[in-house]
Amino acid sequence: MTEPCFDIAHLAHIELFTDQPDKSLDFFVNVYGLTESGRDGDSVYLRGWDDYEFHSLKLTAGKTTGVGHIAYRTTSEAALQRRVAAIEALGAGIGWTDGDLGHGRAYRFRDPDNHVFEIYYDTRRYEPPASEAPALKNLAQRFHGRGAAVRRIDHVNLLASDVKAIRDFIPKALGSRVTEQIVFGEDDVMGCWFTVNNKTYDLAYTGDHTGAQGRFHHVTYAVDSREEVLRAADIFLENRVYIETGPHKHAVQGTFFLYVYEPAGNRVEVANAGARLILAPDWQPVTWNEDERRKGQAWGLKTIESFHTYGTPPVVEH
Amino acid sequence: MTEPCFDIAHLAHIELFTDQPDKSLDFFVNVYGLTESGRDGDSVYLRGWDDYEFHSLKLTAGKTTGVGHIAYRTTSEAALQRRVAAIEALGAGIGWTDGDLGHGRAYRFRDPDNHVFEIYYDTRRYEPPASEAPALKNLAQRFHGRGAAVRRIDHVNLLASDVKAIRDFIPKALGSRVTEQIVFGEDDVMGCWFTVNNKTYDLAYTGDHTGAQGRFHHVTYAVDSREEVLRAADIFLENRVYIETGPHKHAVQGTFFLYVYEPAGNRVEVANAGARLILAPDWQPVTWNEDERRKGQAWGLKTIESFHTYGTPPVVEH
Amino acid sequence: MTEPCFDIAHLAHIELFTDQPDKSLDFFVNVYGLTESGRDGDSVYLRGWDDYEFHSLKLTAGKTTGVGHIAYRTTSEAALQRRVAAIEALGAGIGWTDGDLGHGRAYRFRDPDNHVFEIYYDTRRYEPPASEAPALKNLAQRFHGRGAAVRRIDHVNLLASDVKAIRDFIPKALGSRVTEQIVFGEDDVMGCWFTVNNKTYDLAYTGDHTGAQGRFHHVTYAVDSREEVLRAADIFLENRVYIETGPHKHAVQGTFFLYVYEPAGNRVEVANAGARLILAPDWQPVTWNEDERRKGQAWGLKTIESFHTYGTPPVVEH
Amino acid sequence: MTEPCFDIAHLAHIELFTDQPDKSLDFFVNVYGLTESGRDGDSVYLRGWDDYEFHSLKLTAGKTTGVGHIAYRTTSEAALQRRVAAIEALGAGIGWTDGDLGHGRAYRFRDPDNHVFEIYYDTRRYEPPASEAPALKNLAQRFHGRGAAVRRIDHVNLLASDVKAIRDFIPKALGSRVTEQIVFGEDDVMGCWFTVNNKTYDLAYTGDHTGAQGRFHHVTYAVDSREEVLRAADIFLENRVYIETGPHKHAVQGTFFLYVYEPAGNRVEVANAGARLILAPDWQPVTWNEDERRKGQAWGLKTIESFHTYGTPPVVEH
Repeated sequence: MTEPCFDIAHLAHIELFTDQPDKSLDFFVNVYGLTESGRDGDSVYLRGWDDYEFHSLKLTAGKTTGVGHIAYRTTSEAALQRRVAAIEALGAGIGWTDGDLGHGRAYRFRDPDNHVFEIYYDTRRYEPPASEAPALKNLAQRFHGRGAAVRRIDHVNLLASDVKAIRDFIPKALGSRVTEQIVFGEDDVMGCWFTVNNKTYDLAYTGDHTGAQGRFHHVTYAVDSREEVLRAADIFLENRVYIETGPHKHAVQGTFFLYVYEPAGNRVEVANAGARLILAPDWQPVTWNEDERRKGQAWGLKTIESFHTYGTPPVVEH
Repeated sequence: MTEPCFDIAHLAHIELFTDQPDKSLDFFVNVYGLTESGRDGDSVYLRGWDDYEFHSLKLTAGKTTGVGHIAYRTTSEAALQRRVAAIEALGAGIGWTDGDLGHGRAYRFRDPDNHVFEIYYDTRRYEPPASEAPALKNLAQRFHGRGAAVRRIDHVNLLASDVKAIRDFIPKALGSRVTEQIVFGEDDVMGCWFTVNNKTYDLAYTGDHTGAQGRFHHVTYAVDSREEVLRAADIFLENRVYIETGPHKHAVQGTFFLYVYEPAGNRVEVANAGARLILAPDWQPVTWNEDERRKGQAWGLKTIESFHTYGTPPVVEH
Repeated sequence: MTEPCFDIAHLAHIELFTDQPDKSLDFFVNVYGLTESGRDGDSVYLRGWDDYEFHSLKLTAGKTTGVGHIAYRTTSEAALQRRVAAIEALGAGIGWTDGDLGHGRAYRFRDPDNHVFEIYYDTRRYEPPASEAPALKNLAQRFHGRGAAVRRIDHVNLLASDVKAIRDFIPKALGSRVTEQIVFGEDDVMGCWFTVNNKTYDLAYTGDHTGAQGRFHHVTYAVDSREEVLRAADIFLENRVYIETGPHKHAVQGTFFLYVYEPAGNRVEVANAGARLILAPDWQPVTWNEDERRKGQAWGLKTIESFHTYGTPPVVEH
Repeated sequence: MTEPCFDIAHLAHIELFTDQPDKSLDFFVNVYGLTESGRDGDSVYLRGWDDYEFHSLKLTAGKTTGVGHIAYRTTSEAALQRRVAAIEALGAGIGWTDGDLGHGRAYRFRDPDNHVFEIYYDTRRYEPPASEAPALKNLAQRFHGRGAAVRRIDHVNLLASDVKAIRDFIPKALGSRVTEQIVFGEDDVMGCWFTVNNKTYDLAYTGDHTGAQGRFHHVTYAVDSREEVLRAADIFLENRVYIETGPHKHAVQGTFFLYVYEPAGNRVEVANAGARLILAPDWQPVTWNEDERRKGQAWGLKTIESFHTYGTPPVVEH
């Protein structure tokens, strides 16, 4: 029996594209409540108030929306080397980059749906300026209370045409564990949730039925309580942000969720997982079938249709 | 540079002694909200509704109070062997036991203050009877809502005459990381918090100034929200349980806490950590000095005197 | 200018019919969390833990479901006489009854949709037995924490074929104020919310399009927080109670709501209004038009179809 | 038997003095979360986001701290006349004023401890500018989420050397009901809580043992949940506001409280009462004796000494 893999420490950041950079930045800073830590070229570096790294969101102006890359930090330099070897053996590697404002060199690769990932160990910690220094020294930044005031990056959800192939690939590439999945019929994998640590998931994939590749479903930041999710709903309402669905509780993973679209159209979530963690080293994936999914979310809310169809960038019809 | 150790998966259970077994059991089941999963000799096996193992609290009738042993589960059988070798090298080993109703063979050892620990991999999962089956299959048991309805074991706090020796020992024995500590003056270690995973801590030690050894400060179960901690306070109030301090927020670790004494006198906590996790693989211990501690808890509450002096079993004066 | 009327103190209780009395009683006591205070004939008297009167729900076994009567307590004996005179002038009076286990003589009348109301002043306070005595003497009963543990009766929602006629009648009969209303087009009154005190509403009417009369939409009990509404959703889920819609926030009145059907089919709500009160003595009714209603609930949830159509008793088709 | 009095609708506003007007204003707007609605001379008019009137706090620069006057709005113009007659019969009247930016003419009087009160009916409603218009039309202003974002004025607490005299005076002057009181020994009234409507209290008096008169203990604004009180504690902590005590729950009235000092030294509270209301028209005052008070607050917190001694303005020793 092989031992669990602990090479990857955690989801670190994602790069998100926007074709409305000013409006998106205003949303992420003043409504969602991230803090800017730097700028470089077309990108603004942002983070939640308790993200310990320089950034967890790289917002890059571009011609469209969607995700640029997804980054994980390894547990050590040696672990990084082991992962690179594993990824190269999978034939998925792109190669090394020099990093950016937020971290040192990183190794990039592609998943089977052509999303770009990177892994790195050498990071830059956030050093708060005096105006952002926390009253309690065990926090990365003061609790500023601005907008939804999300605490830290939690997970990312991608779309893929072949989720089954993804379910095979991600554990091999990142050493992730599958914690939950949706399987219709014999083996039609509709959705799959992965974790590299004790969080219930840091990465999810759901089916893309458009024929497009590399698309983005949403990124999620965590808040400390369900009450903060409810409060975020009022913040979004008053700021005329489009609320797609929620607040409600997912049956899958039990997360208390709220989904909105930022001004450029990327879906963004505010969520709370309560005290739920995956502590069992031999956790067995929970599999939901079609009958179970038909019951809707945890308390019976029917899943809104756009949740199954909407992603970024939009699919251009020819 | 050495890599982080991932041999231990999580705190698994503790054995607690009571000299008022009926009253203690009534408290733990009907007021604190644990569920009984079995009995064996003088012991009753109990667990929070989302603890995945057979038990997280072994309540054993005896002549006094305090802790019998503290148990951790390893991430694999091989990891168990590695830890046993490390512990034997420290000269702290006691030897193997056959386990009990809740798990297979386990290796026991002593910390420098003579608390007994055990580590094991082979476990028994909780299998809910039909009456306790959850509506959502990703939970270990239905949310019964009884009493404080605590979700899962969170951490244990022990007393030790030499916390500095403990700070040296635990990382070597369990591969734990020190996440926070209280150090007065140059190097007078007053308290130390350890974790083996992404939780902020699963084990804490604070100073015992009585000259006694092996004493117990408290065990803590997690709930999903601060609101549930507040609700627990009302439950304790109405059930005439002695509330020592809280609800309030610790400056150390930021935990929202509530401490009570179960009928036999052991201190028990209900707590919520919000979304706070230790994700950085190279987290540097946060050290609090005497000036910082003088400010009290996070929002200024002065720490109650008994919190520094009271432990179980009581110290018998001669 | 006439002065506001203060003759009615508060909504006091309703009588609910059930054709599944054992199941309904088990629901109201063990899942919803009311406490039984007495029995008489086919009726069981129930109340929330902080209802100060003997009962706020009279559950009566019968051949069908729906509401028996709705009762308000007056602010004095003289106020009762004034209301009786006003109601008699409206030609709506039925006459005096001797009361029951919960109160003294009461005057009954009918609204234009043939729902039976009663008003009284002479009441019986709940006297908790020792086992239900609260730890704090300003509460009516201990906080028992059983089931959803609702605190007090909050409001009742009735169906009526002509809500406009109701909007005219209720202020004349009870001295209520209209706090909010839904009016489509010029003057098509779809819903109307009334209050006799500082609560945002204690009575609501919405349209019944079936041609039937005297039907019941739901009764609501208040809890102290939105977190308790969320917790109630888990309690209902685990007890296999049908959740119709919620938790979510109403645009009208801003109430955080959760609707379920008790086993016999009557709709029951758990709700929290936050700190919202109607304090202005000259509050002007808030009127919602069709465009505004099309936006759904506060955070965009589309109102579920059954909410517009389902009531009790069921309408028998011939 | 006399009928209850309904002449006074609600506590409307207080005038607070500050000798640090810039710092106090910054606190009330950016940390406490009030919104400025106007300025006039040395005064700034402020209100919570759901206060319906032009202001609920008139902050006036002066040579010291403490309360200028306390204002209640009547339920009608006729009710105002009745109260004036009653107050004049008590010999407590000062006379009419023309009002200010927030309301029309008002009648002023003194309580036995020389605090100045005023009552009025003619008011000015808050009309939000476009930038403050709420998404839901039943709110007075958008939920801005700034600072502690308190919702509405809740109550004021004054100090008096003879609380027993106050207990006699206030019901006669305002028609208030005594809902709770603290009485030591035979009839030593230590504290008294009053209400004019269904709120549990809008006015409280506690003993001033300094020999001074007309002093101020605190003013309180309500938030919708206990979670918002906890959040406010973090906001205060990060903004280096002095937290005196809390968050915790009062035994008296059950309010969840948090007390801080604004920069000039006036004590300010953030509180939540849950769903607790005084609905009984014949509510009997709850009386707490010395033994009961010795138990501390609801969950056992010992009342901090300064709570018994500190008020504004400071007492100058000669």
